Amino acid sequence: MAPSTEQPETPPRRRPGGRTARVRAQVLDAVLAELGEHGYDGLTMEAVAARSGVHRATVYRRWGDVGGLLADVLDAASDDAWRPPDTGSLTGDLAALNQEIQDAMAARPSVMAALIAASFRSEKAERAQRRLWEDRYTRCEIVVDRAVQRGDLPPGTDARRLLIAATAPLYHQLVLLRTAPDPDLPAHAARTAALAAAAGAFAPGERHGKDPAKF
Amino acid sequence: MAPSTEQPETPPRRRPGGRTARVRAQVLDAVLAELGEHGYDGLTMEAVAARSGVHRATVYRRWGDVGGLLADVLDAASDDAWRPPDTGSLTGDLAALNQEIQDAMAARPSVMAALIAASFRSEKAERAQRRLWEDRYTRCEIVVDRAVQRGDLPPGTDARRLLIAATAPLYHQLVLLRTAPDPDLPAHAARTAALAAAAGAFAPGERHGKDPAKF
Repeated sequence: MAPSTEQPETPPRRRPGGRTARVRAQVLDAVLAELGEHGYDGLTMEAVAARSGVHRATVYRRWGDVGGLLADVLDAASDDAWRPPDTGSLTGDLAALNQEIQDAMAARPSVMAALIAASFRSEKAERAQRRLWEDRYTRCEIVVDRAVQRGDLPPGTDARRLLIAATAPLYHQLVLLRTAPDPDLPAHAARTAALAAAAGAFAPGERHGKDPAKF
Repeated sequence: MAPSTEQPETPPRRRPGGRTARVRAQVLDAVLAELGEHGYDGLTMEAVAARSGVHRATVYRRWGDVGGLLADVLDAASDDAWRPPDTGSLTGDLAALNQEIQDAMAARPSVMAALIAASFRSEKAERAQRRLWEDRYTRCEIVVDRAVQRGDLPPGTDARRLLIAATAPLYHQLVLLRTAPDPDLPAHAARTAALAAAAGAFAPGERHGKDPAKF
């Protein structure tokens, strides 16, 4: 991190790490607010600098461009303590997870929707979005681990495939098909994935060697 | 459609409908070629006009902007005679459909990937992409109808939900997570949806009234 000599509003006696972290928080909060209000097309380095109260030269030097700002927002999102819901059942956990996704996407303004859209505009944002999704799916694997521990699923169940099967219909409807949020979909997609799991769709060895046309 | 007086290369004796259709085909072919080679960011009205051999004033007047070009490409895609594969089994049909999706997305250059990305950049392209997806999912409902007729699924099965459950993991991986194509995924996602369908996930009445936490 470069020093922030252009910030007269920051007392020089504070230690650099604290100031660096504080400047980052101010700027990322401003990005989220601007993104939520104006979307990717309304996001500018100038507006973020003005809103954050951080000198524009600092914003340019440290984040480079709008893609750099978005990438840092996404990376910062991985720093939280988020854990998937723990409801006591596989279907319940997946339904609660899907409800979180649907609520985040349906929020007006939706920062999540703006960030996903931005990942189609900026390679930096795309890479950061991929890192964030990887982080989230990795954290969600505990949902499947718990189901295995309860004896509801066989050991070796393909957690990632199960999680993607459960959540993909939400993203498909909301991000790609852009249909209005369906209040039944979070629970239904969860139940569908759980029924498939109970039927062995994600069991060890299921991945290879099957001829789908023969099923 | 406005007359195309700026096209000295077109003999004036041809009838307007034929010329209009021919101009459209030339321009849309040029859009696909430019999009495949350069992606959305490389797509310009000037390049499309130059490549198509159609006068730039005609291109501007008739399509307005890049979003208008993309929207027309998407609308033209619905004019084809595409039908979903008919393999004799639900899983086979869904796997073949998923393979078509994966092949189209994995093509280099991928026009499909460029068009989806463009739908995050242009409202006209977004609306046209939604119309195309609606058209494709409607055409695919025959896959579920055939399974019902064979007695493999109960009458009243929710075809749209089943189709989205089967195809969403493909789009999620390729468009949003942007992972490398997984050669097993088309068949696996198809089989997962078919197993869930066999377990009643898309049966009539399944949509409402279930408490997922109790499953």
